[in-house]
Amino acid sequence: MTKEQLIEQIRLKKSFLCIGLDVDLDKIPEHLKELEDPIFEFNKQIIDATHHLTVAYKPNIAFYEAYGIKGWQSLEKTINYLNQNYPEIFTIADAKRGDIGNTSTRYAKAYFEDLSFDSITVAPYMGRDSVEPFLAFKDKFTILLALTSNAGGLDFQTLEYNDEQLYQRVLKTSLNYKNSENLMYVVGATRPEYFQKIRKIVPNHFLLVPGVGAQGGSLQDVCKYGLTDDIGLLVNSSRGIIYASNGTDFAEKASEKSLELQQEMKTILDAQ
Amino acid sequence: MTKEQLIEQIRLKKSFLCIGLDVDLDKIPEHLKELEDPIFEFNKQIIDATHHLTVAYKPNIAFYEAYGIKGWQSLEKTINYLNQNYPEIFTIADAKRGDIGNTSTRYAKAYFEDLSFDSITVAPYMGRDSVEPFLAFKDKFTILLALTSNAGGLDFQTLEYNDEQLYQRVLKTSLNYKNSENLMYVVGATRPEYFQKIRKIVPNHFLLVPGVGAQGGSLQDVCKYGLTDDIGLLVNSSRGIIYASNGTDFAEKASEKSLELQQEMKTILDAQ
Repeated sequence: MTKEQLIEQIRLKKSFLCIGLDVDLDKIPEHLKELEDPIFEFNKQIIDATHHLTVAYKPNIAFYEAYGIKGWQSLEKTINYLNQNYPEIFTIADAKRGDIGNTSTRYAKAYFEDLSFDSITVAPYMGRDSVEPFLAFKDKFTILLALTSNAGGLDFQTLEYNDEQLYQRVLKTSLNYKNSENLMYVVGATRPEYFQKIRKIVPNHFLLVPGVGAQGGSLQDVCKYGLTDDIGLLVNSSRGIIYASNGTDFAEKASEKSLELQQEMKTILDAQ
Repeated sequence: MTKEQLIEQIRLKKSFLCIGLDVDLDKIPEHLKELEDPIFEFNKQIIDATHHLTVAYKPNIAFYEAYGIKGWQSLEKTINYLNQNYPEIFTIADAKRGDIGNTSTRYAKAYFEDLSFDSITVAPYMGRDSVEPFLAFKDKFTILLALTSNAGGLDFQTLEYNDEQLYQRVLKTSLNYKNSENLMYVVGATRPEYFQKIRKIVPNHFLLVPGVGAQGGSLQDVCKYGLTDDIGLLVNSSRGIIYASNGTDFAEKASEKSLELQQEMKTILDAQ
């Protein structure tokens, strides 16, 4: 998918919502657990009930890897289901990978080619030759961790040297990577005070923003400085949507929660 | 495995060698490719031919993930084969994972419990709550990226603030994490000039050292400042050993290359 196609979808649906498919077998409705592939069935029903309200889905790979081969099968079925039925949806493998050059290429091929994800999250610590192998894929996006929403994000990401914090340096340095137009960045919704500084460095790149909902971030605060003329935001909610109910009405409730967020986004977009 | 057991194995075998099982189907001998699981068969023969010369094996997970479900099956068979036949071997999942708290717990369970690896490599960028879920497992080790061997390692890891470089800060900060006695660190062999500084901060922790061989690092240089009274080093070689030949003699040649390194290590240990 191209950036233009993503923007078009956002304008069409009046939504820049991303739904996190972080499926935990302990949290899904009882009636699904007897099925052959409860994780895929859960995802399928969530997707069918919410696809018109969201522009992106983001399975966190840890939740699939945790179930070994079975988890991997559920992931494959989920991404195939998305690509076959809703090709207009932007898909994000939340994998936070990154390794030396030839090894990053392996990860990139696995997620971009074999699984046909549109994008993958990548950790920046190993620098240029760990990121560029991902950037080399046309119409695929590499979403670099910049400023994460968790408490530990402040251990290193805001360390300051020469009046510049590490996450700012990560943003600036990565702009010099080859094919940096294929970059997006993870910026937590729990850190709205940083969005203004971030937009000074990356005025046009998309930001993937987790932390709205369960983690306490505010959509209004994020949009105040994060929104660009081309929107430039994908705001993720996981638990708040997919676990809105653990009864037989889980998909319906997920749709209701998605609609609430989409309506809030529509108001913001209409006011632009 | 405990740290004491690992040290005992090193003294017994006069080796602190780790062999990287980074298996690429394009590089393995032709005669294996007709078998049902060429990757596992390759690993099995390498392991059988080298287990007496090495104390650790390190599959890089990217190489398995690249083959999807089949790759995951090869990985499971490989770790099970190691644990059943050579329980004295220290096993490292080179996964470079790391995510917010509850998600890191998922990765930790997958690698420490389901696959029964002794250790996993973890990226530090997301800080304390992304690392501590791994550290919570008793007799399991979390190998944090500190100073990596690749060129891009210098993009951020050596940034300096208050006379301290980022990798030094990572070392110091992580010592305050809960269960920090379960930490080890990745330090590239291509950066021998840093080992003295690193040992001032972590005088006793084990360092996993990639970059000897194909990447150009020197074993002598690494040992000069890296070696401790309890050895404290695991030196990894991947391509230099497992691809020493791509003929039917690949396991024999891998054993010869391992013996060369082990003999060099024996000389260093005997001189201690």
